Amino acid sequence: MQNRIIKIAMNGVTGRMGRIQHLHRSLLAIRNQGGIPLRNGETLRPELVLVGRSETRLRALAAETGLTHWTTHLDEALSDPDVQIYFDAQVTSERAAAVKAAIAAGKHIYCEKPIASDLRTALELADLAGKAGVKNGVVQDKLFLPGLRKLRALVENGFFGRILSVRGEFGYWVFEGDWQEAQRPSWNYRAEDGGGVIVDMFCHWRYVLDNLFGPVRSVCALGATHIPQRVDENGKTYAATADDAAYAIFELEGGIVAQMNSSWCVRVYRDDLLTLQVDGTHGSAIAGLHSCKVQHRVNTPKPVWNPDLPSTHSFFADWLDVPDNNKFDNGFKVQWEQFLRHVAEDLPFKFTLREGAKGVQLAEAGLESWRQRRWIELAQI
Amino acid sequence: MQNRIIKIAMNGVTGRMGRIQHLHRSLLAIRNQGGIPLRNGETLRPELVLVGRSETRLRALAAETGLTHWTTHLDEALSDPDVQIYFDAQVTSERAAAVKAAIAAGKHIYCEKPIASDLRTALELADLAGKAGVKNGVVQDKLFLPGLRKLRALVENGFFGRILSVRGEFGYWVFEGDWQEAQRPSWNYRAEDGGGVIVDMFCHWRYVLDNLFGPVRSVCALGATHIPQRVDENGKTYAATADDAAYAIFELEGGIVAQMNSSWCVRVYRDDLLTLQVDGTHGSAIAGLHSCKVQHRVNTPKPVWNPDLPSTHSFFADWLDVPDNNKFDNGFKVQWEQFLRHVAEDLPFKFTLREGAKGVQLAEAGLESWRQRRWIELAQI
Amino acid sequence: MQNRIIKIAMNGVTGRMGRIQHLHRSLLAIRNQGGIPLRNGETLRPELVLVGRSETRLRALAAETGLTHWTTHLDEALSDPDVQIYFDAQVTSERAAAVKAAIAAGKHIYCEKPIASDLRTALELADLAGKAGVKNGVVQDKLFLPGLRKLRALVENGFFGRILSVRGEFGYWVFEGDWQEAQRPSWNYRAEDGGGVIVDMFCHWRYVLDNLFGPVRSVCALGATHIPQRVDENGKTYAATADDAAYAIFELEGGIVAQMNSSWCVRVYRDDLLTLQVDGTHGSAIAGLHSCKVQHRVNTPKPVWNPDLPSTHSFFADWLDVPDNNKFDNGFKVQWEQFLRHVAEDLPFKFTLREGAKGVQLAEAGLESWRQRRWIELAQI
Amino acid sequence: MQNRIIKIAMNGVTGRMGRIQHLHRSLLAIRNQGGIPLRNGETLRPELVLVGRSETRLRALAAETGLTHWTTHLDEALSDPDVQIYFDAQVTSERAAAVKAAIAAGKHIYCEKPIASDLRTALELADLAGKAGVKNGVVQDKLFLPGLRKLRALVENGFFGRILSVRGEFGYWVFEGDWQEAQRPSWNYRAEDGGGVIVDMFCHWRYVLDNLFGPVRSVCALGATHIPQRVDENGKTYAATADDAAYAIFELEGGIVAQMNSSWCVRVYRDDLLTLQVDGTHGSAIAGLHSCKVQHRVNTPKPVWNPDLPSTHSFFADWLDVPDNNKFDNGFKVQWEQFLRHVAEDLPFKFTLREGAKGVQLAEAGLESWRQRRWIELAQI
Repeated sequence: MQNRIIKIAMNGVTGRMGRIQHLHRSLLAIRNQGGIPLRNGETLRPELVLVGRSETRLRALAAETGLTHWTTHLDEALSDPDVQIYFDAQVTSERAAAVKAAIAAGKHIYCEKPIASDLRTALELADLAGKAGVKNGVVQDKLFLPGLRKLRALVENGFFGRILSVRGEFGYWVFEGDWQEAQRPSWNYRAEDGGGVIVDMFCHWRYVLDNLFGPVRSVCALGATHIPQRVDENGKTYAATADDAAYAIFELEGGIVAQMNSSWCVRVYRDDLLTLQVDGTHGSAIAGLHSCKVQHRVNTPKPVWNPDLPSTHSFFADWLDVPDNNKFDNGFKVQWEQFLRHVAEDLPFKFTLREGAKGVQLAEAGLESWRQRRWIELAQI
Repeated sequence: MQNRIIKIAMNGVTGRMGRIQHLHRSLLAIRNQGGIPLRNGETLRPELVLVGRSETRLRALAAETGLTHWTTHLDEALSDPDVQIYFDAQVTSERAAAVKAAIAAGKHIYCEKPIASDLRTALELADLAGKAGVKNGVVQDKLFLPGLRKLRALVENGFFGRILSVRGEFGYWVFEGDWQEAQRPSWNYRAEDGGGVIVDMFCHWRYVLDNLFGPVRSVCALGATHIPQRVDENGKTYAATADDAAYAIFELEGGIVAQMNSSWCVRVYRDDLLTLQVDGTHGSAIAGLHSCKVQHRVNTPKPVWNPDLPSTHSFFADWLDVPDNNKFDNGFKVQWEQFLRHVAEDLPFKFTLREGAKGVQLAEAGLESWRQRRWIELAQI
Repeated sequence: MQNRIIKIAMNGVTGRMGRIQHLHRSLLAIRNQGGIPLRNGETLRPELVLVGRSETRLRALAAETGLTHWTTHLDEALSDPDVQIYFDAQVTSERAAAVKAAIAAGKHIYCEKPIASDLRTALELADLAGKAGVKNGVVQDKLFLPGLRKLRALVENGFFGRILSVRGEFGYWVFEGDWQEAQRPSWNYRAEDGGGVIVDMFCHWRYVLDNLFGPVRSVCALGATHIPQRVDENGKTYAATADDAAYAIFELEGGIVAQMNSSWCVRVYRDDLLTLQVDGTHGSAIAGLHSCKVQHRVNTPKPVWNPDLPSTHSFFADWLDVPDNNKFDNGFKVQWEQFLRHVAEDLPFKFTLREGAKGVQLAEAGLESWRQRRWIELAQI
Repeated sequence: MQNRIIKIAMNGVTGRMGRIQHLHRSLLAIRNQGGIPLRNGETLRPELVLVGRSETRLRALAAETGLTHWTTHLDEALSDPDVQIYFDAQVTSERAAAVKAAIAAGKHIYCEKPIASDLRTALELADLAGKAGVKNGVVQDKLFLPGLRKLRALVENGFFGRILSVRGEFGYWVFEGDWQEAQRPSWNYRAEDGGGVIVDMFCHWRYVLDNLFGPVRSVCALGATHIPQRVDENGKTYAATADDAAYAIFELEGGIVAQMNSSWCVRVYRDDLLTLQVDGTHGSAIAGLHSCKVQHRVNTPKPVWNPDLPSTHSFFADWLDVPDNNKFDNGFKVQWEQFLRHVAEDLPFKFTLREGAKGVQLAEAGLESWRQRRWIELAQI
């Protein structure tokens, strides 16, 4: 069996997410398992070039990972004819320019979400990639969470009958940084730096809703900055100018209503940091990141409102776990493998830049709805 | 100690709610406990006249309760000079005319919600009562649920710091009536008969939010008829024309956001049929009908998003019960006692017809928001 | 509202089953609740004549129940023109002659199972009743057990997908009578007195299988007399000549296999004395007399055979109860009400003498299969 | 102490069962523990030659186990004069020819079940081995499961009094392969490839019943192909032509009835994937793979059929565990040690090829019974 090398320029992977999920758990894990077997009997083996702005951090990352190729000059990486794929996990504001350069250099594109700061640019990237004929993809990791994969299996199974509604609760308490250090970076709370929970999360909600339940057609959202003042990484108080919570209702094709709360100012009384409740005519489910519970209509109790007595019925006990019958590999890695096989042997790949643009569209529409205090319909992309 | 008699005409109490909550658990319970002690040493003892349309049902109710006065003629009851209070628990469409007649007869007014089918009429009733100088009140029972009383105590206590948001989930699965009998009457699902979850529940949300957290200033609501066809009490299929679910966001004075789902098409994965989560800078609470749990910020965990491992942390275990240190009497009865003392000795009473009109206003605005697909601001009442 | 009297001759109700289930829990209960409301507004009120052989026992029963009419002469009861219904709960060997007499007297017939000792006689009774134009019915109480009603709801609901198999375990340990008194009468264990578990139980299995899953087409049964010697009510040892256990496989229309064990020589490691496991493509259920548990295919674990380690998985925990959303009245009473309304207002009634004959047919075929050591096909009735 | 070497040719151990149970847990474990002590003070040390068809897989297995001898030529292994034992774990269709060659080469024979595809061949192998005077044995692993060893101890103990019946439930849900991958290979479901649950399991039932309770005398079996279409390892839909469930009744010497269900289309509501309930005059037991519970007749409750009330008695609580007082070594290893000592020092060994032929006989008779729809008597072997 022969090895086939595929060389990837990895830009912006010194941050936590890039380093852990994209390098360690995805590409290094693929190398450690010996590569990806292709249909023709060959084995696809990724070779990596680290790209970044800080020489110090790149050196450290190279030492940590045992990788030997790195550069602080994107041009250098893009002009290497062996590099076939450009991956971008930089801050959003830097992404578009770098991706354009990579497309111009004829590289295939894979990048983090949101693919751009605004819809116009996002669509421009998708168009450019299309015209250049390069393959392209965007990270849509939440679809690969075990809990959501179980949810998808339930949908495909017809478990729900007709789906009526989806209720999502995402969030947890992000400390203000005064008496306890915050667990997220301060730029997340500054609009001027691209922060805000709508911009961060609506990209995710778009592909989750589109792919699990049906295309999102319209949105009504209310943002809020519940905590107007926070303390940053250096102990300095700053004005939080971005939304730290968003209350949204989405209408999906087919009449499904999706009500989603996203908040960094909420204390968690749920199974997990993200939970989705789906109700259908024949059954319901509650999914977390890993677990998924169901209640079929034959197990549905018939409660009667009786305020006179404390309820002795445990409504939590009416649900049953969907078992872990499959082993779920890391979702980032699974998607990397799909994209690499898309590049190497032309297997289909659903999560293109155009799909990524839809996420940007929903975030933009959410902000617009908040400003205009009305529902916003989404144009077809 | 001397007894003081207060005679009340009870109209429309042959139904389930009127019979159980207003007669048995409130007024008959007050009689059984010997009446209400007044500040002047007297004991206030209610005497009751049943009013209704069906002689058969009135006779049965009289037999059941041991009451001896009843009539099918409202005029007869209203022309009795000893009757001081007129209570109305009829279907909504009959309420306004009867209340007007009672005001004209100089009776004090106490009635069920919604006080009228539309805001104009509701305000007219409040104005008429004001001009006539009769005392007046409206049932606002949910405020007296033990779980919500505990919530109020937490607010008064300053437990929450600054309150940021309220999230309510109300609802349960109401069976369609085909393979299992429905547990609610079919008129609830017909718009033409005054059905619909917005009309039913928004009256409640108004006084709950106003009284616990702050005046409601605006509303954005989406109704849905998730189950378009149901089977009625006689096994006949009918078209469900009213909303059976409502997804709403309310803005309260002071910037608090209240997001409330009301649904008869949801399976319950919660502590109770109604739960309210309140998040504040210093602490959070989850209230059900009877229980209330809190998490102070010193008990708040610092979760980090990690999709690689199933969560082993139980977020439910981070909350602690507010103990049942007080015995909570039936809420309907407590409110009756307050109203009777308001009439008998002029103690203050907050829940007037004008307050009741606010509930009608919110329901109207909710329906308007749904139609216009935008936020609706509430005029000051 | 007017009362309408329906007079019933009750023959053979001094035994345990007749006295408790048919008198106390059915007809006396119907009288206590005021009768049965008919569609035309009338109320149907049963009046009873007790018939039996022992004057002593009849007197005692009359005293116990407050009934005043009784006779030891069947002819007397049958010649009373007011008696419309003849009910028979005598020992099987006496049934046919009495039922024939009642048919000849023009009475409607309702009786216990088995309706006769052999198929020929059973069909003769059905034919006679048909020719005489009298209404007729047979007790099929197990269908009215709450657990089996829930099972039926699951079937009607389509919960199982395609049903593959049914496994029934009926039985418990009937003590031999030597060191502990037996809890069943000794005639049950003597073939010459009509005993045997096949004759007793296959009548039940016929209507249970036919009505819940599909018509029984063939049977293969093995009887056994595991305990050949028992001690009777008087402390006398006797030879047990009848089968005290039966191991049977039934084929139902549509390819469903039903495997049923019936035994008085088995110790119970099950939820109930009778349990039915139903497996279908989409889900499975386990029903007892009252409870019913289900496992949907989305909750089905994926076990792998591993003999090296003790199983730590609890297979019992993978099932969820079907809740008690309906109140189930006593099954004997429900069936009585159906039969009485069938007589009084011609409502349809499924469980006729012809249906009862099918049970006798299955018992006969089971014994035949045992003797011939092969499968027996059932002729269409 | 002196070592004595015993050289074994292991054919067909690259598959899951051969590799894990026969190599790792049996022979390598014996080597790791230093060999088997013999009565004469010597230590018997197995030396292994791997035989197979795929050089790649043999190399991998050699690397994994540290074994150095392997060959793809059976002849080579059989012509090695040091090889004393030939072990065969190939697919059934290949077994007979290889075993014959090994007998001809004068090797002792040990092999997996079923020893041949048909009874005639199976008996031929036993005869050939007898004539050649080589020692021979067949794997009968289930007898060595801790749960079944406890059962045997109970039998030997006289715990049951006279044994009346045995009820076995074997099986679990094997996924269809469409929405969840199947956990068994697709050939199991194709008759043309030697699949089917009767062929697979009746060999086991024969030695389990024969050795624990008494020789099987006759069988009545009904096979079924409940799921006629499945999806294979490559995602291709195929017709399932073999039986995936078997409903069988066996008669044992002494009148014991054994009723055994074997199914890959059943959801498990039991303690384990295989459970055996044994009922005797003095006591009963339920065995799983590892655990075993008993109920003595002095602990037997006296249930009375009462359909009016939900059972509050837990029948599961009437049973008590047989404790793990002995440590049970891996069953495959225990049997290997017995066979090796049988070869090395002529200790008796019960599980010969002739015993193995009995398993083939029962499977053949089961299929015959299904075809002929009648009981099949087993000829004495």
